[in-house]
Amino acid sequence: MNERQIIQRLKRIATDPAARGLADDAALLDGLVITHDTIAEGVHFFPFDPPASVGWKLVAVNLSDLAAKGAGPHAALLSMTIGDSDWDEAFLDGVEAACESYGLKLIGGDTISLTRGAPRVLGMTAIGEAGERVPSRAGGRPGDVLWLVGTLGDSAAGLAQLSDDPEAVGPLVDQYRRPVPQLAAGQVLAREANAMMDVSDGLLLDLSRMCAASGCGAEVDLDALPLSPAFIAERGQDRNARLFAATGGDDYALLAALPAGIDPVSLSLPTRTRVAAIGLLAEGGAIALRDAGGPVKLPERQGYEHRA
Amino acid sequence: MNERQIIQRLKRIATDPAARGLADDAALLDGLVITHDTIAEGVHFFPFDPPASVGWKLVAVNLSDLAAKGAGPHAALLSMTIGDSDWDEAFLDGVEAACESYGLKLIGGDTISLTRGAPRVLGMTAIGEAGERVPSRAGGRPGDVLWLVGTLGDSAAGLAQLSDDPEAVGPLVDQYRRPVPQLAAGQVLAREANAMMDVSDGLLLDLSRMCAASGCGAEVDLDALPLSPAFIAERGQDRNARLFAATGGDDYALLAALPAGIDPVSLSLPTRTRVAAIGLLAEGGAIALRDAGGPVKLPERQGYEHRA
Repeated sequence: MNERQIIQRLKRIATDPAARGLADDAALLDGLVITHDTIAEGVHFFPFDPPASVGWKLVAVNLSDLAAKGAGPHAALLSMTIGDSDWDEAFLDGVEAACESYGLKLIGGDTISLTRGAPRVLGMTAIGEAGERVPSRAGGRPGDVLWLVGTLGDSAAGLAQLSDDPEAVGPLVDQYRRPVPQLAAGQVLAREANAMMDVSDGLLLDLSRMCAASGCGAEVDLDALPLSPAFIAERGQDRNARLFAATGGDDYALLAALPAGIDPVSLSLPTRTRVAAIGLLAEGGAIALRDAGGPVKLPERQGYEHRA
Repeated sequence: MNERQIIQRLKRIATDPAARGLADDAALLDGLVITHDTIAEGVHFFPFDPPASVGWKLVAVNLSDLAAKGAGPHAALLSMTIGDSDWDEAFLDGVEAACESYGLKLIGGDTISLTRGAPRVLGMTAIGEAGERVPSRAGGRPGDVLWLVGTLGDSAAGLAQLSDDPEAVGPLVDQYRRPVPQLAAGQVLAREANAMMDVSDGLLLDLSRMCAASGCGAEVDLDALPLSPAFIAERGQDRNARLFAATGGDDYALLAALPAGIDPVSLSLPTRTRVAAIGLLAEGGAIALRDAGGPVKLPERQGYEHRA
């Protein structure tokens, strides 16, 4: 059973409407948007990552799920394995900083010890207040314009730098370690979006999930993918660099399918929000990639999936 | 930092009233009682425990926290590490069985892979519907009678059997692997209790937490502790056996401080509910133990705490 098969099994258990068929990043229960993300040492973060950044990231990745549903931060429960005092305390400093930054109230959780040498596993359940509309992944329609809020590939490039050199620093490493959830943009876009999700496992993989949930396909223009100056300086912006950006994980950008004719720039997004039209939803079920050179073959690996 | 110090640090973050000062098993938010418990392989369960029983136990320990607040099961999010297909599928069978048994809707969660050989870590956030009253640990008053719902020591005795022999079977092992949350009794007692909690880490340790939160001490009659026939057959019922029962973990019994004069038997508890008066809350901050032989020295180890 890989992650996809496990989720199929879970879907047979999670039949309540609040679960939204598990085809979403979050549940919708009694006006609350509820999500849970767990991160593990050696999988989602390096043992040498600064613990405060791990705490920040745990909060941020959960808030990104709320952002994708247009929800406002409300409360959170923390699950942490405990071991090394200095590490644990710095981790909590990072959790606290992120909670304070985004107005998320820590209201509970659990602390457990692990067997010696076991990797840390850190979880958070985040609860958001739903807005008037809570777009799922499933509402996209052929003809919708795909908008992306944020940039792609920075975090994956930062991860690659750290894999080569644990001492690496810079904006790409920062983006990997301290992603910024697009909460304000999410709340604005939720009012108009037919479908919305955050991009956390790689654009093409996450888009394929939106397409599957919405029962449609998509066309994506690689040249339209928003890349940061730091990303371009590190990896360029040719087709290979753009395919890297389209399949890297940990972006925590937002992907919104808006009806044609709605320009997000007119929707009073927060200033300095980077937003780009990257393609369209289309009939069928496939994702078609192209760039200025013509059609581009879909890469075999479209993002990050947990495997058994 | 041990667990207690970590929780002190967390209390400085969790200042919202919904957190109830983290002096409780659960948070109270917008009429919902919310709790999170995580269990880890090698700590909370054996690698050789049947995976379906691990799934059952994860749900049951979370429901026990809801029971302790008098809440009714509503919804849950599951966090699971995935690895071995057969194990994972049987685990989910157990989760499903428990969710169905208690009317708990699975509405979301997260699946992650771990590095090779890492112990499984399984978490659940359970959400309950609050009743008219949601007793905390903090409302106990000197003179309240301490009532215990369930029996003590069975699970710790079952754990000891399994530690000696992984093939051990019987009612004590069953109680360790498949605890039963006292949901119906919790809902009845919540209407009257000044303080209530579940006994999960050992009666004396958990009672000391109720005393600390309530600002009082307690007197406990060891002879009054409810023991099961299976426990008595295995370990006897002398002072040592009773101290074992009073300090073992994983009981998932309920401990309620009721105003003197209220007899739970008059409160229409579910039939066959075992309930016993085991002592009183008292002035001061200490716990005084006694049995027919007179005062009994408080054991050094009063229950199970996670340590760094």
